[in-house]
Amino acid sequence: MLLGRVVGTVVSTHKSAKIEGLKFLLLDMIQPATMEGQGKYVVAMDGVGAGTGEIVFYTSGSCGRYTEATLGRPADATIIAIVDTIEIGGKPTYVKNPVIEDAK
Amino acid sequence: MLLGRVVGTVVSTHKSAKIEGLKFLLLDMIQPATMEGQGKYVVAMDGVGAGTGEIVFYTSGSCGRYTEATLGRPADATIIAIVDTIEIGGKPTYVKNPVIEDAK
Amino acid sequence: MLLGRVVGTVVSTHKSAKIEGLKFLLLDMIQPATMEGQGKYVVAMDGVGAGTGEIVFYTSGSCGRYTEATLGRPADATIIAIVDTIEIGGKPTYVKNPVIEDAK
Amino acid sequence: MLLGRVVGTVVSTHKSAKIEGLKFLLLDMIQPATMEGQGKYVVAMDGVGAGTGEIVFYTSGSCGRYTEATLGRPADATIIAIVDTIEIGGKPTYVKNPVIEDAK
Amino acid sequence: MLLGRVVGTVVSTHKSAKIEGLKFLLLDMIQPATMEGQGKYVVAMDGVGAGTGEIVFYTSGSCGRYTEATLGRPADATIIAIVDTIEIGGKPTYVKNPVIEDAK
Repeated sequence: MLLGRVVGTVVSTHKSAKIEGLKFLLLDMIQPATMEGQGKYVVAMDGVGAGTGEIVFYTSGSCGRYTEATLGRPADATIIAIVDTIEIGGKPTYVKNPVIEDAK
Repeated sequence: MLLGRVVGTVVSTHKSAKIEGLKFLLLDMIQPATMEGQGKYVVAMDGVGAGTGEIVFYTSGSCGRYTEATLGRPADATIIAIVDTIEIGGKPTYVKNPVIEDAK
Repeated sequence: MLLGRVVGTVVSTHKSAKIEGLKFLLLDMIQPATMEGQGKYVVAMDGVGAGTGEIVFYTSGSCGRYTEATLGRPADATIIAIVDTIEIGGKPTYVKNPVIEDAK
Repeated sequence: MLLGRVVGTVVSTHKSAKIEGLKFLLLDMIQPATMEGQGKYVVAMDGVGAGTGEIVFYTSGSCGRYTEATLGRPADATIIAIVDTIEIGGKPTYVKNPVIEDAK
Repeated sequence: MLLGRVVGTVVSTHKSAKIEGLKFLLLDMIQPATMEGQGKYVVAMDGVGAGTGEIVFYTSGSCGRYTEATLGRPADATIIAIVDTIEIGGKPTYVKNPVIEDAK
C-alpha cells in the first residue's frame, strides 16, 4: 500500500454505472520520512470516509475491489485506512491531530 | 485511477477478436495541479463515450475488465469517467466547459 | 495498453510447459507523438501474428491471459493489435505502409 | 518480489474492516548489491512476524492476498519472507545477525 | 515479461508456508540491446531450474502464479524461460554459450 495525503476531489457526472455512488478523492503521494508531497497524484475511491488533509494509505490493482465499498467495482485504487501515526526508527514522523470529541 | 486528457485515437484492423468493437483512445497523462500533459501516453478502451480534449480517468490492470463495455475483454486500461471538476485545496484546478444543451 | 515497435525476437528452448508454442517478440516502447523508440524493452507474447517493424499495442498483467492465444497461460504482456494509424490532435503521427495485396 | 528493510510502523484505528487485525509495517526498498535504502517506501502487511531492521521481501498485487494471513483481504503488499542471506556473484552482500538462542 | 540475468540467490528460513520449497533467485534487469545490467533487482521464483549467469525472462503479477511450480502460491515474479538468443533488427545481441553435452 502507498501513503498519500488527501488534497482534493474529482467530480464526474458522466461515468461507468459501476462506480455510481463512490467518492473520488485526489491523493498526493507522500514521502513518509519527511511527510512532503511528491507531486505524484492518484484518484482513489474512498472506502473509509477520509477528508481533505488526512494521511491515508490505499490499496491498488485488483485489491482495490476487495473492500466493503468497492466489491466488484472497477476501483484500482481504494483508500483502506486513515493513518494515526507513522513511526520510523522508533520516532514518529507523523501524528494525526487528536480529535477533541468533547471539549466541554 | 489516473487522470489523462484524450489527445487522439489509435486504429487497428488486425487485432484480437476479444477487442472487436471497442474504441481505442490515446491519453496523455496530466498533472492535476497544473493540468499540463506529461508526454506519457497510454492507449485506453473507451467505456463512457469520451471525446478529444476531455479530461478523464481510467482504471488499470484487471479492473479494466470490470466495466459494462469491457467485461471479459483484455483491457488493461479503461476510461470509466469524464471529469467535470478537479479541486485541490478547495480551489478548482479544472472545470469542464459547460455544455449549452438548449441555446434557443 | 502501451504502444511498442516490434524490434526483434527472444528464443528459448528451456521454458515452462505453459508457454510452449507461443512466440516471444521483443518490443521497444514508443512515444506516439514522435514515434521514437524509448529504449525500454518488453518481451511480449504474440497474439496476432505481428512482424518486425510493426507498431503494436499489448495488454499487461492478468489481461495478458485473456486472449485466444494465451488463455490460462502466464503471459503478463500480450500483443492484441497491430496499429494502422495513430492520430494526435486530428493529425496522423503514424500511418502503416499500405500492403499492396495484388500488384499485377 | 522486492527487497526492503523494515524501518517502522504505520498505525490506523479508522480503517476497512477487511484489514482489522493486520499489522502494517513500513519498508524502505533496498539495493541488494549495496544494501542501501533507496528512500522509496511501501506499507506492507506483515505475514511472517517481521521486526524493525530486518531485511524482508514482499509480494505485490493480487499475490498479496495469497498468504495465510491475508487470504481475501485487500493487501497489495504482503511480507512473505525474512531474509537470512543475499548472495551476488557467489559473495554474500547480506548475512542476518545470528540469533544466539542459548547464550548460557 | 522482462529480461534479467540471474546474479545471485536469496535465502530465507522464516517465510510463509505457501512458498516453502521454492527457490528464490536474484535477477538484475538487463537492457537487451547492450545486455548490460541495470542495477534494478527483483527476487524471482525459479520455475525452470535457472542458474547463475543465465539470461531469463520472468512473468509478473498474478501471472506469476500460473506456472507448474507456483500454482496458487504468492509468487509475483516467476522465471518461465531460459533465453537462448535475443535478436534485434535481425542481428543477435545475445547467444547462450552452447552446452557441450558430450565432449569425449
